[in-house]
Amino acid sequence: MNKTVIGIDVGGTNLRGALVSEDGKITKRMKVASGADHGIETVIDNLVNLISGISEGEDVSAVGFGIPGIIDFSDGIITQAPNISNVNNYPIRLNLRSRIGAEIGVIVENDANCAAVGEWWMGAGKNVESLVMITLGTGVGGGIILDGKLWRGADGFGGEVGHMTIYPGGPRCNCGNYGCLEVYSSATGIRRMVRETLADTNSRTSLRDLVKEEDPGRIPEVVMKAAEDGDEAALRIWEQFGTALGIGMASLVNILNVEMIVLGGGVSLAWDLFIDRAVDELKKRALRAPAERVKVMKSVQGDDEGIMGASYLAINAGKGA
Amino acid sequence: MNKTVIGIDVGGTNLRGALVSEDGKITKRMKVASGADHGIETVIDNLVNLISGISEGEDVSAVGFGIPGIIDFSDGIITQAPNISNVNNYPIRLNLRSRIGAEIGVIVENDANCAAVGEWWMGAGKNVESLVMITLGTGVGGGIILDGKLWRGADGFGGEVGHMTIYPGGPRCNCGNYGCLEVYSSATGIRRMVRETLADTNSRTSLRDLVKEEDPGRIPEVVMKAAEDGDEAALRIWEQFGTALGIGMASLVNILNVEMIVLGGGVSLAWDLFIDRAVDELKKRALRAPAERVKVMKSVQGDDEGIMGASYLAINAGKGA
Repeated sequence: MNKTVIGIDVGGTNLRGALVSEDGKITKRMKVASGADHGIETVIDNLVNLISGISEGEDVSAVGFGIPGIIDFSDGIITQAPNISNVNNYPIRLNLRSRIGAEIGVIVENDANCAAVGEWWMGAGKNVESLVMITLGTGVGGGIILDGKLWRGADGFGGEVGHMTIYPGGPRCNCGNYGCLEVYSSATGIRRMVRETLADTNSRTSLRDLVKEEDPGRIPEVVMKAAEDGDEAALRIWEQFGTALGIGMASLVNILNVEMIVLGGGVSLAWDLFIDRAVDELKKRALRAPAERVKVMKSVQGDDEGIMGASYLAINAGKGA
Repeated sequence: MNKTVIGIDVGGTNLRGALVSEDGKITKRMKVASGADHGIETVIDNLVNLISGISEGEDVSAVGFGIPGIIDFSDGIITQAPNISNVNNYPIRLNLRSRIGAEIGVIVENDANCAAVGEWWMGAGKNVESLVMITLGTGVGGGIILDGKLWRGADGFGGEVGHMTIYPGGPRCNCGNYGCLEVYSSATGIRRMVRETLADTNSRTSLRDLVKEEDPGRIPEVVMKAAEDGDEAALRIWEQFGTALGIGMASLVNILNVEMIVLGGGVSLAWDLFIDRAVDELKKRALRAPAERVKVMKSVQGDDEGIMGASYLAINAGKGA
């Protein structure tokens, strides 16, 4: 039987869903506001609407969700999700099935894990059996595929590569640790480095004017443009970003000897500004053989990798995928 | 059928072998000199003698070897082994079977990977499905068990946790990188820290006299005794050892969310001098849930863990273990 599933990316702003076939083709798309700030019940209402919209006239066997947060995959529970108000051990599988019908499978997974699965299934990692996905966004997320299987860890925390220590004496991270990868190679890290740069009142940089009235969410883009225009302070920020990423990738390569590292997430759009530095650092630090083996790739599915990964997990639910 | 196998630990000085039953019992032991400095053909002769000595009167189905070096597990080849003269892509499986009989299975694996398997099968990790083994010896080795299976990596380099970067600006490691875990938390690291301590001619420490005429191989033991006697410089060395180990373990826990970390190897005998510092650092740096989950254990099999791991792999050869 040819299975058709729905993959959904649960974001803080939007719910983006698609109808996906067993061979990885997207045949329909829909997007609705998530209403995450009104709490999980509103999100559930919106999810039910999205699912019924996409599944109309289709034979859907399962729905997969990628959710930024801590997910209990086996029980289908959102343990914690910082972007949705009032979520704490929420049994999303149980509650959704009571709305959409118990015959439809419901799979929930962390969004970075979904991205890893999506890139492995139909993206940059299509032809490899092992990869680490690193999502460079507000923070740094990650997912690990080994032997063609997602490694979730004992409690679903596997792949938190953003919280590897890079510089033990570095700035404090939101997680409580110091000098994590996320402190350097994320939008949050860039904003921190901009603040540091501007705190030096002697430094002459176009950033001083550029970021003044800027929406914090757009600062990475501003630093990107400034670097492209040759601003030295901005170039140094991307250099630090790339160096930390390279140190982290080298350790990952030495620990896991994976065939590929895929870099995705919004900040990966600045690719040309950090990738050479990052790969140089990786090659310099990792053992020769695994460093030669690993391919560092840009994600090819962009916004769709989470939808694709959630779909793959929905298609293969029960197969131990 | 109840399988009986031989597990062998191939060291630079000795070959230690044992007859091991399917339920993990050692029923016979033998040890011979390895002759590693005379090259691989001498080692093979000695291995053949050891195997025939142990297997006399027994029905042995397979032999497993743990070898310090880079091993091609699937083809049974020693790619590189620093402790054996003139070894380079040596087809040990092929050559041994022509001597001991093609009906006997031959399994070759890296020694730290064997240690990981041994501790998981019959040691500290008996009741868990995921662990990282860290061997604190001359260098720092490692092996990773996930879902009850050894993760070898794409080329057999998985688990090289000794070459994670801990302090990016730290001293150069033998591997070419700077500030690796091995630079701090190994016998080599201790000797380096002793040299640094003594280079400060103002430092008053008993180490100055104690290490003067000492065999370099015994220096960790000397530093251990000096620390137990309250020498401050020696205590600081173990503190650095433990701190680096804790930083590394925290990153491993965040990346892999394993249930257990097992610490073994000769230098782990100094347990009380570094473990509190290491676990404090781990708890301080790792994400809360995986840090609470992970148990940090001393290896329980000591010298036998490699033999046991090699035996397990020999018993389960062909089952994808």
